Amino acid sequence: VRGPAAEVVADRRDLHAHPETAWTEFRTTARVVQRLRALGYRVRYGREVVREQARMGVPEAAALEAAWERAAAEGADPALLEAMRGGFTGCVGELEGAAGPGPTVALRFDIDALPVTEADAAAGHRPAREGFASRHPGAMHACGHDGHTAMGLGVAAALAAARARMAGRVRLVFQPAEEGTRGAAAMVAAGVLEGVQDLLCVHLGAQSHVSGEVLPGVTGFLATTKLDAEFLGKEAHAGLAPEEGRSALVAAAFAAVGLHALPRHSEGNSRVNVGVLRAGSGRNVVAGQAQLLFELRGETTAVVDYLERQAAAVVAGAAAMYGVEHRLRRAGAAPSASSDPALMALVARVAEATPGVRRVGEPCRAGASDDAATMMAAVQAAGGRATYVIIGSELPSGHHTPRFDIDEAVLPIGVGVLAGTALELLGAHP
Amino acid sequence: VRGPAAEVVADRRDLHAHPETAWTEFRTTARVVQRLRALGYRVRYGREVVREQARMGVPEAAALEAAWERAAAEGADPALLEAMRGGFTGCVGELEGAAGPGPTVALRFDIDALPVTEADAAAGHRPAREGFASRHPGAMHACGHDGHTAMGLGVAAALAAARARMAGRVRLVFQPAEEGTRGAAAMVAAGVLEGVQDLLCVHLGAQSHVSGEVLPGVTGFLATTKLDAEFLGKEAHAGLAPEEGRSALVAAAFAAVGLHALPRHSEGNSRVNVGVLRAGSGRNVVAGQAQLLFELRGETTAVVDYLERQAAAVVAGAAAMYGVEHRLRRAGAAPSASSDPALMALVARVAEATPGVRRVGEPCRAGASDDAATMMAAVQAAGGRATYVIIGSELPSGHHTPRFDIDEAVLPIGVGVLAGTALELLGAHP
Amino acid sequence: VRGPAAEVVADRRDLHAHPETAWTEFRTTARVVQRLRALGYRVRYGREVVREQARMGVPEAAALEAAWERAAAEGADPALLEAMRGGFTGCVGELEGAAGPGPTVALRFDIDALPVTEADAAAGHRPAREGFASRHPGAMHACGHDGHTAMGLGVAAALAAARARMAGRVRLVFQPAEEGTRGAAAMVAAGVLEGVQDLLCVHLGAQSHVSGEVLPGVTGFLATTKLDAEFLGKEAHAGLAPEEGRSALVAAAFAAVGLHALPRHSEGNSRVNVGVLRAGSGRNVVAGQAQLLFELRGETTAVVDYLERQAAAVVAGAAAMYGVEHRLRRAGAAPSASSDPALMALVARVAEATPGVRRVGEPCRAGASDDAATMMAAVQAAGGRATYVIIGSELPSGHHTPRFDIDEAVLPIGVGVLAGTALELLGAHP
Amino acid sequence: VRGPAAEVVADRRDLHAHPETAWTEFRTTARVVQRLRALGYRVRYGREVVREQARMGVPEAAALEAAWERAAAEGADPALLEAMRGGFTGCVGELEGAAGPGPTVALRFDIDALPVTEADAAAGHRPAREGFASRHPGAMHACGHDGHTAMGLGVAAALAAARARMAGRVRLVFQPAEEGTRGAAAMVAAGVLEGVQDLLCVHLGAQSHVSGEVLPGVTGFLATTKLDAEFLGKEAHAGLAPEEGRSALVAAAFAAVGLHALPRHSEGNSRVNVGVLRAGSGRNVVAGQAQLLFELRGETTAVVDYLERQAAAVVAGAAAMYGVEHRLRRAGAAPSASSDPALMALVARVAEATPGVRRVGEPCRAGASDDAATMMAAVQAAGGRATYVIIGSELPSGHHTPRFDIDEAVLPIGVGVLAGTALELLGAHP
Repeated sequence: VRGPAAEVVADRRDLHAHPETAWTEFRTTARVVQRLRALGYRVRYGREVVREQARMGVPEAAALEAAWERAAAEGADPALLEAMRGGFTGCVGELEGAAGPGPTVALRFDIDALPVTEADAAAGHRPAREGFASRHPGAMHACGHDGHTAMGLGVAAALAAARARMAGRVRLVFQPAEEGTRGAAAMVAAGVLEGVQDLLCVHLGAQSHVSGEVLPGVTGFLATTKLDAEFLGKEAHAGLAPEEGRSALVAAAFAAVGLHALPRHSEGNSRVNVGVLRAGSGRNVVAGQAQLLFELRGETTAVVDYLERQAAAVVAGAAAMYGVEHRLRRAGAAPSASSDPALMALVARVAEATPGVRRVGEPCRAGASDDAATMMAAVQAAGGRATYVIIGSELPSGHHTPRFDIDEAVLPIGVGVLAGTALELLGAHP
Repeated sequence: VRGPAAEVVADRRDLHAHPETAWTEFRTTARVVQRLRALGYRVRYGREVVREQARMGVPEAAALEAAWERAAAEGADPALLEAMRGGFTGCVGELEGAAGPGPTVALRFDIDALPVTEADAAAGHRPAREGFASRHPGAMHACGHDGHTAMGLGVAAALAAARARMAGRVRLVFQPAEEGTRGAAAMVAAGVLEGVQDLLCVHLGAQSHVSGEVLPGVTGFLATTKLDAEFLGKEAHAGLAPEEGRSALVAAAFAAVGLHALPRHSEGNSRVNVGVLRAGSGRNVVAGQAQLLFELRGETTAVVDYLERQAAAVVAGAAAMYGVEHRLRRAGAAPSASSDPALMALVARVAEATPGVRRVGEPCRAGASDDAATMMAAVQAAGGRATYVIIGSELPSGHHTPRFDIDEAVLPIGVGVLAGTALELLGAHP
Repeated sequence: VRGPAAEVVADRRDLHAHPETAWTEFRTTARVVQRLRALGYRVRYGREVVREQARMGVPEAAALEAAWERAAAEGADPALLEAMRGGFTGCVGELEGAAGPGPTVALRFDIDALPVTEADAAAGHRPAREGFASRHPGAMHACGHDGHTAMGLGVAAALAAARARMAGRVRLVFQPAEEGTRGAAAMVAAGVLEGVQDLLCVHLGAQSHVSGEVLPGVTGFLATTKLDAEFLGKEAHAGLAPEEGRSALVAAAFAAVGLHALPRHSEGNSRVNVGVLRAGSGRNVVAGQAQLLFELRGETTAVVDYLERQAAAVVAGAAAMYGVEHRLRRAGAAPSASSDPALMALVARVAEATPGVRRVGEPCRAGASDDAATMMAAVQAAGGRATYVIIGSELPSGHHTPRFDIDEAVLPIGVGVLAGTALELLGAHP
Repeated sequence: VRGPAAEVVADRRDLHAHPETAWTEFRTTARVVQRLRALGYRVRYGREVVREQARMGVPEAAALEAAWERAAAEGADPALLEAMRGGFTGCVGELEGAAGPGPTVALRFDIDALPVTEADAAAGHRPAREGFASRHPGAMHACGHDGHTAMGLGVAAALAAARARMAGRVRLVFQPAEEGTRGAAAMVAAGVLEGVQDLLCVHLGAQSHVSGEVLPGVTGFLATTKLDAEFLGKEAHAGLAPEEGRSALVAAAFAAVGLHALPRHSEGNSRVNVGVLRAGSGRNVVAGQAQLLFELRGETTAVVDYLERQAAAVVAGAAAMYGVEHRLRRAGAAPSASSDPALMALVARVAEATPGVRRVGEPCRAGASDDAATMMAAVQAAGGRATYVIIGSELPSGHHTPRFDIDEAVLPIGVGVLAGTALELLGAHP
């Protein structure tokens, strides 16, 4: 195979072999910047596209630095790297159409990997068998963002080729830190969506595990907030002086229970999950520190805002019960959002005509949350439209698992549907 | 039977028939005042012997008033009653010896009854069979304080008869509200123990269920604090608007669990008990109010003080978890205390010589708490001595039960041991 | 005023003055039976219409008996009373139309009052001012079921008058124990809805506080289960022998917290409320008994079934934590249900033509639960149709409050809409 | 310095440089065995002195094997190592006196190190400065057991030298896995204390931080049990299907709170500490597993037995609340114990005459727990006597800290007091 399809697969495999987790997508970003520039895009990156204070869930400085140095060692352009140092990954490329004035159409692709250890060839895992498995221990593209990024580059090339017919402009947003809904807000805060009339987001697999199927949109992303609570008590020997201790473990246990007992809300469904609790250093020591990682979700943003206020009270009250200090920090957030019907209709129409598509399905219920909703809600709040396209793909194993893989044959479908829709919006009918 | 023994029994039966619970001992006090005056004692009562702000666990105004009116209807002296209105019960009688200067010896008797419904004759209960059972529904002398008060009057008479030989003075303290350790602090705060060298307290039964036995003292009263916590949340329809409610029930449940989880203390044993929890008005309403009644105990006063500080944090923190207001109020308190060895030795010597005494035992461990400890600790802190004498008595049923009764034959023993010890301390050897 | 409207008001006032709470509607039932018989209905009552084992939340025997004797003293027919003894209230009247075969149309009216103490004239409460306030202390028709029952009698009369034109039959179901969703299941289990094609239920006020407005139906009744949990521990002196106790209070507190922490469900909204917690007898006693009253709700019956299974585990586990025995009992239950569109459309059409109606509104969202849903779901499960009609009424104070009252002027509207709809269904157009 | 004192210091430094944690004391044991044999002791080791099923808190097989291979690489005798493979460390040496029959006197020395990373020279830590700091990363003799073992070898030599005068025999018990009270029970179960009349245990520092001071015994070791609880729930996506999960985290949080809320006991002081709680794998996943490490202590063994029964109920109940499976495993245990007065008196007398001793103090309160109590209680239960001697030592930093060190000058004091006492018991007066 040669041509655009072959290139998308090659890109995907290169990215798959070099997965970078949230806020460390240094090599990935550098490659995207170079490719976009080569195609004639005006490209912004670094602090121009990521507002420092709006980033959530940024790793410790040492982890950022180690990943940055790895990217350098892997040959990423030093000038680009310098601008990204400290976790300012992601980039935005813009291309002005040559056919006169028109709307601004944005397409958004998430680029980060997951802290998952990839399966090996013995497990029958194709990337390992075929030599493009992760070369970064403990990291893996287990959610398909390698494919998303590769499709983004494919779309970039397709649009560049059609530039003469485009009235308006396209803006390609390569977003870091989607996992944990941590990165979109910092890009929105940096203004990357200003002036956008239509926004197209995309996901491989997800609600459709059928290669050749396309779902034109999604409704009902749950709003979510991710929170980290730390408890700082006082250690003491549990046998000799229990009264001198203040158990962060007991405070955290009360908080964990108390969070799950938060009230339901009449405005709609909600979710609470304390997913991780770590406390204490030794059996015979009153635990001096504890940590909770939890998340809240709601059918509407108002429901989550309510839960977040109550959760803050629960954490503070539980700490106060045992004289323990606490700190509560947002580690991620996304609002509720739904695709716009008119835009879904256009996607569906384009998909019907896209080679390789065997079935255009109905919009699906989201059920969960996605950082794309942050961008969708921002565009919609400014009067624009947005949708979230599902490119169906057979999957050997579910998202976020060590044996996850995508059907590479569907990558050109994604490129075709997205580029085709963008061109329609820009009046560039084939 | 006639003479002093008969009188003590008659007094006990009159008091048994008219039990008055904490802070409502209006008729009881009025009778004691009149009897002490008749014997030549200088008597103080009302706000002179009870400091208003130091009272704990005072009933609601309506309950106080109803009991006050009952006492009036039963013929208590209106002038005396007026001074006691609103819960200023108890009195102190003092008698100056005629044999010159000497120490101040105090004897303390508790006078309150319990909110227990007395057994009837069908249950084989002697007070009912013999016609002196409680005439006050829901109240009963089920801890022997009727006997204590009657012994106090017997001691008053015995000492008055020996006044000529007394060097120094006796002070008889009739204390209200012992149950729940609510009354002693208010008498101490009013100064009733000022200048006291030796304090004798007494209890019938308790650690000795053998008539004719006397234990000269007690060690290791547990310090205690009784606390009432109220939680005020916000009611809401649990189906239509759960998010508008703030559940006082959930806050109280967290507090109840949290109190039982208070740390142990290296200085000694402790106890925590949430004995009563009442919350909510209806199944489908988010509970707007809740109440906890609990107590703390400790081997030392420091242990209880520690627990009380922690308990305040637990209650406040649990309330804060769910945005609920709270109020915490002391409903009783007593320190730890132990009898003085020298005073115990004197009591033992006197007891050996007292008619009716068949055995003088060893000092016993308290195990629990008693409001007498408040007075003992106050006298000891000022450099004086104190003991708590157990007058053994066969019991048909345990303290605080509906079939409780005492062996009236031991009342003269108590009078003899207490009056005898006081006279020894005042140099009035027989 | 005279005629049917006056009679409905007179009936409502008589019932308002004699409120009877769940399973004690002896006088109420007796009056309804007599009136229906007088109108020519075939009437069933007692165990024929209430299946003993399916009753939920039945009061203690003594309370049933006291209410039964009160009804006798108020002149209820002894023969009827005998059949109802022990809490077999409610009745069913059936009238065969004379115009040939046709469907069976059922109308359901709930008849029970609430344990609320009614406001007095000083509070400006009209029933008190005009002399028909509750004569039963502590009970009150504070939810409008007096009006429902009176409307039922009005409908009975209207249909009896139109019998000649009716093809098919009407069945009037007077249901006890709606409050707490306790009674409908026992009537369904007794077969009172067998063969019913269409079921009409009714409520005054509720989602419409505008006199003259009618809402033709309701969607989204939440499924619900009401549960009572009892905990039986072991009492012990909290100071002397805490280790001998098993605190039912602590177990109940854990259960209360644990119930509120039950997981959310992906199928739809849910609710949990522990509304009442009562535990313990005294501050210094390890609590020997405790009681929780709680309810679960869900957008679907499956959600509530899930919650009920989990709740049973929470209660059992919390009891086991502290060696406490427990008992869990259903005190009420109702499924989710929604009105049928076609039946709502008919009601709307009839309402448009009913005198006094000024506005026919849209179907409303239920938000909460109702025992009527039990009957609606039973009819729908058997292939029939059902709706729940709201007869708007101005209200001086909300449902279930001491100053609740209805606008009696709307009672004839209710009679008109219900009787009119039934007649349409029976082919008896006016 | 030369002679015995120099040898004890050299031994201590060699052991300090090669610390081995519980059940991995392979090199340590091999050296002790060889030294004892060289002195003429009959030596038992391996499964002869450690009963497999009675071991508590044994590391995972991989950790045992890695430590075993390290010992081999460090030159430990392969034949000895073979017998210890899988965690059968520790040994017992016995020497028959030549002066005829007499009692069996045992001396017990604990040999294990701690999982502590030792301080470096930059921190002014002497072992690092002088070149004998730990060569095993993450392990350190931070409790002085290196000194205990060295003293044991010194005692072995001293007694061998006096063998001719000894009537009876000495038995030297080198115990593994004292930390966490994990090893003594397995040696007792293997019979190593059979026939022992007198048992001497020893600790450096502890309650005396004065070099030259000796405390002849200890009273009031708290009984203790160490327990590990594991919870196995079911993972589920917290947003998409919360109802499919069973949160091990929530169950563990309830258990942690519930354990701290265990009742106090009237027989004496108690302690509860959940020191470590680890639960969950990711924020958005219902936690599938959780682990609690906790310990119970009590003034008497009965108190701890009570707490252990209740703790098992709490853990099981909390797991049952949320349908979670659990496993509870003993990770350590020791009874309460106190030194025998007569034996303490002998130790004191010997100490007074021992060179280097400047002060013989009073027996001290233990406050905490020690695995030695397991052996003391075993000997006492069989009619023998036991004590636990404190050899005072200045300490630059507390026990179990990275800068812990002992004053090596006190090692010969320990050898002198212990060997001297043993010789007195065997009639071998100097």
